[in-house]
Order: sequence, then C-alpha cells, then structure tokens
Amino acid sequence: MIRDDALALDAADPLGPLRDQFELPPGVLYLDGNSLGVLPKTTAARVQQVVTQEWGTDLIRSWNSAGWMDLPKRVGDKIAHLVGAGPGELVVADSTSVNLFKVLSAALTAVARDAPQRRVILSERSNFPTDLYIAESLAHQHGCELLLAEADELPDLLNAHTAVLMLTHVNYRTGRMHDMAALTAAAHAAGALALWDLAHSAGAVPVDLKGANADYAVGCGYKYLNGGPGAPAFVWVHPRHVERFWQPLAGWIGHAAPFEFTPGYRPAAGIARYLCGTPAVLSLAALECGVDTVLAAEPLSGGRSAMAALRDKSLALTHLFAARVQATCPQLTLVSPVDDAQRGSQVCFAHPEIGYPVVQALIARGVIGDFRAPDILRFGFTPLYLRYVDAWDAAESLRDVLASGEWQRPEFKRRLAVT
Amino acid sequence: MIRDDALALDAADPLGPLRDQFELPPGVLYLDGNSLGVLPKTTAARVQQVVTQEWGTDLIRSWNSAGWMDLPKRVGDKIAHLVGAGPGELVVADSTSVNLFKVLSAALTAVARDAPQRRVILSERSNFPTDLYIAESLAHQHGCELLLAEADELPDLLNAHTAVLMLTHVNYRTGRMHDMAALTAAAHAAGALALWDLAHSAGAVPVDLKGANADYAVGCGYKYLNGGPGAPAFVWVHPRHVERFWQPLAGWIGHAAPFEFTPGYRPAAGIARYLCGTPAVLSLAALECGVDTVLAAEPLSGGRSAMAALRDKSLALTHLFAARVQATCPQLTLVSPVDDAQRGSQVCFAHPEIGYPVVQALIARGVIGDFRAPDILRFGFTPLYLRYVDAWDAAESLRDVLASGEWQRPEFKRRLAVT
Repeated sequence: MIRDDALALDAADPLGPLRDQFELPPGVLYLDGNSLGVLPKTTAARVQQVVTQEWGTDLIRSWNSAGWMDLPKRVGDKIAHLVGAGPGELVVADSTSVNLFKVLSAALTAVARDAPQRRVILSERSNFPTDLYIAESLAHQHGCELLLAEADELPDLLNAHTAVLMLTHVNYRTGRMHDMAALTAAAHAAGALALWDLAHSAGAVPVDLKGANADYAVGCGYKYLNGGPGAPAFVWVHPRHVERFWQPLAGWIGHAAPFEFTPGYRPAAGIARYLCGTPAVLSLAALECGVDTVLAAEPLSGGRSAMAALRDKSLALTHLFAARVQATCPQLTLVSPVDDAQRGSQVCFAHPEIGYPVVQALIARGVIGDFRAPDILRFGFTPLYLRYVDAWDAAESLRDVLASGEWQRPEFKRRLAVT
Repeated sequence: MIRDDALALDAADPLGPLRDQFELPPGVLYLDGNSLGVLPKTTAARVQQVVTQEWGTDLIRSWNSAGWMDLPKRVGDKIAHLVGAGPGELVVADSTSVNLFKVLSAALTAVARDAPQRRVILSERSNFPTDLYIAESLAHQHGCELLLAEADELPDLLNAHTAVLMLTHVNYRTGRMHDMAALTAAAHAAGALALWDLAHSAGAVPVDLKGANADYAVGCGYKYLNGGPGAPAFVWVHPRHVERFWQPLAGWIGHAAPFEFTPGYRPAAGIARYLCGTPAVLSLAALECGVDTVLAAEPLSGGRSAMAALRDKSLALTHLFAARVQATCPQLTLVSPVDDAQRGSQVCFAHPEIGYPVVQALIARGVIGDFRAPDILRFGFTPLYLRYVDAWDAAESLRDVLASGEWQRPEFKRRLAVT
C-alpha cells in the first residue's frame, strides 16, 4: 500500500461527506475523539440561540416554549437509536460517574432483595478508574465485595456469589472490546445482572443493548458523541427493571409530578426516574448537535444502520494505522486486538519508557493522540471525520518522530499530565 | 409615595449601573430571577469563545491551556466570597440535588460514627421538595427518620436524637429566611450538625457560613447567580469536616490523582473530594459570567461587601412592592415576612383560588413572576437588575389585573405548569 491507495479509498468513501459536519482546525490531525470529540459546525449557532434567544429573551418561559424540560428524553431517544435501546428507555443526565452510581445502586438493591447471598461485583482490573471508584463506594455501602480480574478470567469467575457483572464495553486503555451478548448471557446464566459502560462505544461501535439482553447501561456524551467538554452522560435501564426500584439520587426531576411540590417522593414512570436535578440546558443543546452528527451517517449507509457503516470504516482505519505502525515502528508493541471483533475504534501501542515524550512530539507536529499512564500511546479513530489518508499520515508522523529522535527534545519531557 | 419617588430612588441608587450588565428583553419586567436569573451581557461571547476557540480549535489541549480542570475551584472561590466561605473551601459541580446527596451522606456517616444513637434528620415541611426527596432516600438507606416540622417548631425538636438539621435558608415558597447563626448554634447545642441549602440565598442575601459556624452547604447556580438554565450547583464543607469522610459519589475527579488511573479510590485533599465526574465546561463558563455580575457590586458598595449593599436595595424593593400590593390588592394575603430580618429577596402573596390565572395575566403584560402550587403568587427581586420603578410598576400591573378582571380570560386558565 502507498499513500495514493489511501487517497483512493477516501475518494470512494460514501461516508466521506460526513467530515464536512465538523470544524476541524487546520494543521491538526485529531486522533483523540475518544477523549473529546471535535466541534460540530452546528453547535456554536445552536448554543448561541439557546443563550441569546431561549434564555436571554424568552427566559423562564423556555422551560415550556423551547422544550427545555424534554431535552433529557429527546436527546436520550436519539442516543437510544445508536445503542440498540428503544424510545423512552434512555435519558441524558448528570455525569457517567453519577449515572453509574444510580444504576449500580439499583442493581445491588435488586439483588439484595431477590438473591441476598450474591455479594460480589465483578469487574475488570483495567476498567476505567471512575467505574471502579464508584463500585468501591457502593460495595462498601452495600456490604459487598468488588472483585477485579483480567478480561479473560471473567467468565470463570461468574458464579452463585456474583451480584453484578460491571464492565466497560471497550477498554479505555487498550481498545479491547468485550462480547456484550456473550458476557451478558454468561452473567445471566450464573444468575447475575450485567451492567455496561458505553463510554468508548456509543457512536464508535455498534451496540445492541436490547439484543444483548443487557440490564443496565451508562455512557459518555463528550467522546464519540461530540457533545463538548463535560457534556452530560446517559443512562439506560432495561424495561424489565426500570420500575422495580428507586435509584437513590431521588431528585425532583425524577419525581412523578415535580411541579406539584409535594413532600413525599414518588418516582416517575419509566426511565425518567433516573433523572435527578434540573437539566443542564446549554450542555444538552450542545450534545444534541453532536449526536446529530452521528445520526447523519444513516442516509449515507446504504440501507444499513449508521453504526454498521461507521464500524466498517472504523475497522478499516484502525487496521490501516496499526499495520503501518507495526511495519515501521518496531520499538512499539501493539496492545489493541488484531482481531476485528475485539477491537474498538482506537489503536494503542505500548512502550516501557518513551510513550509520554513520543506523544508530546506528535502533538507538536499537530498529530493529537494521548498518553495513558503508565506506558500507553493511544490513538482514537472517529470515522465521522477521519480519512484514510489521515490514518496513513499519522503513522508516517509516528515513524518520523521515532526515527528522527525528536521525542528526545527537553520540551517533551514528562510533567504532570491532566488530560 | 408616588411613582416619581421611585424614579428618584433609582436616580440616586449607587447600584443602578449594575443593571447595564444584563440583556433585559424590552417590554419585560422580570420578577423571576429566583427561578432563572437573566442573561449577563458577557455570557454569549464567553460561551462562544469556549465553544469555538477552546473546544473547536484547541480541543483536548484546553484541559490544561484554558484551565478547564480548574474551573470548579476557580468559580467556587468566587462564590465562596459571596457566602462567607474561604478560598479553596467550595467547588462547583453537579446539581443541587446531587450535592445535597453528597453532604447529607457525609453528615450521616459522621454522626453514625460519632453518635450512633442520633437517627433523625430534622427539616422543614415546606422545604423545597428535592431536598426532602434526597433526605428521604438517605434516611431510608441509613436507617434514619426524616422528621418534618413547621419553621417555628424546629428549635424545640432539636434533641439527643437529632443527627442533622437540614434547612433551606430562604424558603422557596414564602421567602421566609431562617436565622442561620441561631439555628446552627441551636443544632450544635443539641449535638447535631447543620446543613444549609443556599438556593435562594447565594447572590440574594448576605450569607456567612463560617461566621454562622455551619457544617455543610449546597446552593444553586441558575437563580440569583445568573448562571443560565440548569447551571451547575455548588457544595461547601466546613474545613473541620472536609477530610474526615468520603462522600459516596466517589468519581475520578474527586480522586487524589485522577490521571494516575489507579484502581483504588483515594480522596483528594480538601473540598476537591466533593467533585465526581468530568467538569461541565460550557455550563461552568456561563456560570462564571453570572457570578461576576454579583461581584461587580463590590466597587459600588461604598466599602462594604457586595452582598451588604445588594441586601439594602433588595429589602427596599421588596418592602416597596409588598406595601403597594397590600395597599391596592386587598384580595391577596402577604405570606412573606414583614420583618426585614426574616425576608429573603422575594415577596409572595396567597390567594385560595385565582393565583394561577392572575400570574398568567401578569405574564401576558410582560410582568413575569411565577405561581407555586397550591396558592402562591411569587415575585423575586434581584437588586442587580431591578429598579425601584420596576417594583412600583409591577405592583400597579398586579392591581390592574385584579381590578380589570382580565385574569378571568379563558387563555389564563390553569393547565399543566412545568416552571
């Protein structure tokens, strides 16, 4: 393969026009959409409309007239379409961490009633830390144990003591993707519930929550959904569970009749009981623009779902990049799965020593990936706005940074990293 | 008093220029800043800068270069200055409901360890419902009782069984303000902790959390702080408690070293452990603009604090409005305290039947207050942007709506209200 082959793939790509939806800064090759998605072209005007017209001019009346109160459900329905959930089953609210607290609390409450001998939350040792912290907190509160294992050990650890299998579908560090249907079935076979964090899945890979028969899910708005920094997150509960339990963050927006202002809590019907405080309107409006950029793939997908078409391109991009880097950068060890079925929308390499300065040197060249301690060089591929030639060029830049030794410059030395 | 007297008061008002900080829609007299503050003139440009420059162009790098990660503390320090808290003691995060969950959990954990016989959360029956719902949820979880009483009964109900006195400083419905210092002292004398919700206080009335020796506080960003619809809320914990306990929403941003990505939770030093998920950057930026509009009163306050000067004007406005309405609308019963020391920054009247259509008829005239079920006509007075003549004119409009009978028009009949 040569660079012209990549250009030819772009020229023939039916999803190519989707790139025009975004404000891509010149000179930047952005491989960090798995941390913060790029800005859609519609967002600035939409946020400005919310600020100046809906808030500034219409003021309090916009809760009704502009549909602010419906935003958590309206944007939730759009996300539901991307993750195999039904309309009215998913809402946008709070952060991923807070939503995980809600659903894991509900799951543990359910198990405590139905099967009190089940006291183990099973998760992956390399799960994203906030998931583990929240689980640790709730395990303590509920008198449970948080059991951490390697991915391959999980099926064998499901047993009569397992309350909840809590996993992030695509690992934030390696990009390895679990088989949601198989692990959910294994959890159910063992009598446990299955809870999925879709932070690196929603908008990145096909997800079929109902098809996999999952029990609970949460996910992030600011990665592949392009919702902006700190965008609100989402929460889904399978309809078979949703009205069986309260979640503990029993705020007024999850009440059956918030504006009756009555002192006793009565949870709303359905997923609305997973709402808590007043909706974050500015952030919700921005998130809707981001979700719309993913839905826009549908008409270009040749009769398939948006996510199916995006997945094909994503796999082609990550395959191209991984193969080129493996061919040209023998110092780096591929840690993302080679098997398409196990690879999310990112490619990660490990190096025991120089990961941080290499990533910094790449960023200085305008190729933005990120470093994840202790040794991971992480590159996210968002098929909505990345081209085949970008994957090619990024691999060339990585080879050049290593071959030239420019990563050794003093300005790339490690300091406190906060992204 | 005649209208010209109100105009004269405005002409002599040293705080009058503060009104120029806001985008006030023409033809609107806005008495609902206690529900949603108006739009500051700086907000649209600042939000646009965050969207197009910090997010759109600088992307992930802005977590460092634009100080996104510091926003919860930076905006928190500004709010701290308005509520009698020290720098580094208060952070902006999540919603009021979620923050209340954090601090009430921490308080109940503290009491369970120090004085396990204390099993009662004492609050006011007419406290804002979300506070009661969260308390109900936590009472259930901790095996405690939620005891609700009238405001005047509270001191007598503090005893050896009380764990936490949990109150909203200014009542959302009546505008009645508790004596924070006296009730906190009474709670402490009984061996209980005092937790204050400042939703209708921050930016509205002087608050001195440290001076009152309060234990915990939360508050709202979208009312008198003008942060925009669904702006994030704030949380404060007295330094004597802050590092003694974890709060249960142990998300990664409250971790001592979030970017080390280690699996075990270690809470951050100080109030940062009350953070949970990724900061909502767009909303935080808008909130900072709103808080700045309050801080702008300081140089116009004649050497006093911003809140002291704003309080004088607020009391004069609410007094003027209440007196005029009482003089001209005998059908309405004043439910806000006449005593300045007990009145927040709002004036409420009750009518057993026609409150809803009267408020709707006023809104149709451009005088925006709100109705709070079952019988309250509520008018918030924000001294930052309301003039004496506005208080006069609002009272005249209310009189006219009642005297003309225009509230009887069919379009003002009650329907589902969601604001």
